[in-house]
Amino acid sequence: MSESFIGIDLGATRIKAGLVRDERILGTVVVNLDPADRSQSGVVARLAGVVRELGDRFLEPGQAVAGIGIGSPGAIRHAEGIIVRAPNFEQWNDFELGRMLGEATGLPAKLDNDANVITLGEAVYGAGRGYRHFLCLTLGSGLGGGLFLDGRIYRGADGMAGELGHIGVEPEGFECNCGSRGCVEQYIAAVGLRNYVRRDRLFGDGTEAALADPDLPRRLYEMAKAGHPVAGRYFHDIGYYFAMAIGTYLNLLNVEAIVIGGGMARSWDAFGPTLMSELHRRAYPVLVERTRIIMCELWEDAGILGAAALAGGRS
Amino acid sequence: MSESFIGIDLGATRIKAGLVRDERILGTVVVNLDPADRSQSGVVARLAGVVRELGDRFLEPGQAVAGIGIGSPGAIRHAEGIIVRAPNFEQWNDFELGRMLGEATGLPAKLDNDANVITLGEAVYGAGRGYRHFLCLTLGSGLGGGLFLDGRIYRGADGMAGELGHIGVEPEGFECNCGSRGCVEQYIAAVGLRNYVRRDRLFGDGTEAALADPDLPRRLYEMAKAGHPVAGRYFHDIGYYFAMAIGTYLNLLNVEAIVIGGGMARSWDAFGPTLMSELHRRAYPVLVERTRIIMCELWEDAGILGAAALAGGRS
Repeated sequence: MSESFIGIDLGATRIKAGLVRDERILGTVVVNLDPADRSQSGVVARLAGVVRELGDRFLEPGQAVAGIGIGSPGAIRHAEGIIVRAPNFEQWNDFELGRMLGEATGLPAKLDNDANVITLGEAVYGAGRGYRHFLCLTLGSGLGGGLFLDGRIYRGADGMAGELGHIGVEPEGFECNCGSRGCVEQYIAAVGLRNYVRRDRLFGDGTEAALADPDLPRRLYEMAKAGHPVAGRYFHDIGYYFAMAIGTYLNLLNVEAIVIGGGMARSWDAFGPTLMSELHRRAYPVLVERTRIIMCELWEDAGILGAAALAGGRS
Repeated sequence: MSESFIGIDLGATRIKAGLVRDERILGTVVVNLDPADRSQSGVVARLAGVVRELGDRFLEPGQAVAGIGIGSPGAIRHAEGIIVRAPNFEQWNDFELGRMLGEATGLPAKLDNDANVITLGEAVYGAGRGYRHFLCLTLGSGLGGGLFLDGRIYRGADGMAGELGHIGVEPEGFECNCGSRGCVEQYIAAVGLRNYVRRDRLFGDGTEAALADPDLPRRLYEMAKAGHPVAGRYFHDIGYYFAMAIGTYLNLLNVEAIVIGGGMARSWDAFGPTLMSELHRRAYPVLVERTRIIMCELWEDAGILGAAALAGGRS
């Protein structure tokens, strides 16, 4: 019988976890983190409860869970299972989550950052299957990503490689929360659409309200599809700068495929044509022709499936 | 007794080769290629003659050469020892140089592109020793480079990775001979200095003559050191754009060191201060702080020593 693993997608406010066997999610549990208790021991207790619940509800009698995998935001030491720096809470800095959850559950627990886990999910179960070299780009509020090189996740010297959204495409462009400016995510992710709207004051006096609307990217997409010239221009610019970034990735890394996912990827029909035509002007033609630009396959399941693959020993 | 290897630096017009043992070049031979005979068989015969001459002149009695390594410009299939596309002569396309030189000399012959060979030389014998992850940048007429990741040269899916000079830093910048525009080498290499001089017509009616002068980069460097404000600005801009590129490399690849060589690297005192101060604004501070920016150690010997390391089985 195949082994069962638990994959956990740990967010800033929410835990999404699933029991995975034979490439399938048998069941999921979603719980919110306690806003009043961000402590390390509180999070570990909550995660251990989720692990127990998944086993109770979805394992058949006599079966056992073989291991746990976790994808977390922040800077992670994969080999040691430590969150070095979390982007949201100081309490999570130097968090030995792998060891602590292992002790709380009696199961081996492996940890990696969420972008690497998504990339691993696509590599093992999704659009990256069969490729030895590909990049996985997650276009959402920002641009996250992972490098799958020579058949495994490339993590760099300290586990911090793969900041694909933080490459400069405009020397003195929009300020970025990484401390630099002109980073590509400021031009192509949801944060980029907000930059454009703010710069142009697109909605006049209603601009501030529009910027506060979490649905703004979808609203702009629908305006673009309905023929609004400025909204259309924004998605053109997304394709233009996205091509510039992909050209850089291809010329540096000579991968076989670029896998694109994340919420903004669903607007592909608005920015994809510009991206593809620009890309032919941006990278070595031989590299563009040999590289497939494809959609991810796992979408919202990538975090759980990738974490389960991590638990199963893939890396 | 240690083994002896022959390292060959194959250029468009010249062969530079050396006999290497115990990390030392025991002797070198430099010959020009016959301008009237660029044929594959002609080049192989010339290379075989160089191999013979090195053995005759520098081997002690009873010693033998264990293997040959070659660094060549162009797109190379390292594993098969084939020059797929040479930048200078069509006759060198699909050139099975490894096999042909092996048959002509009776010695195993390995091949890689010149930038990877230089990187391997620095990894084994030079400034890259002790690093598991570093980039080697050769700043000359263009910007070449190699990626040393996880303890070996990273070549990508088809051996074409490492085009470090061809990442976009100005969306609609100077045209590049790769077919794109705004590539970093057009701003920081000798070709970049020429772009600046041409744009500004720096020498008035003498501009065309200055552009044709192969010594123009050194002339501008001396002007900058003497306080010429425009020439000084050019080197400032080199540091500025170089920092932008290095920021991209660090955020993507999280390496331990950036090794800089090539003729233009000797102008470090004119562009290095800007590079270092800009770099702190360009990449994640933690990545900048943990990465050493250092000069190469092998300079003109990198090609021969790296090719000898390749012959010795390093890759």
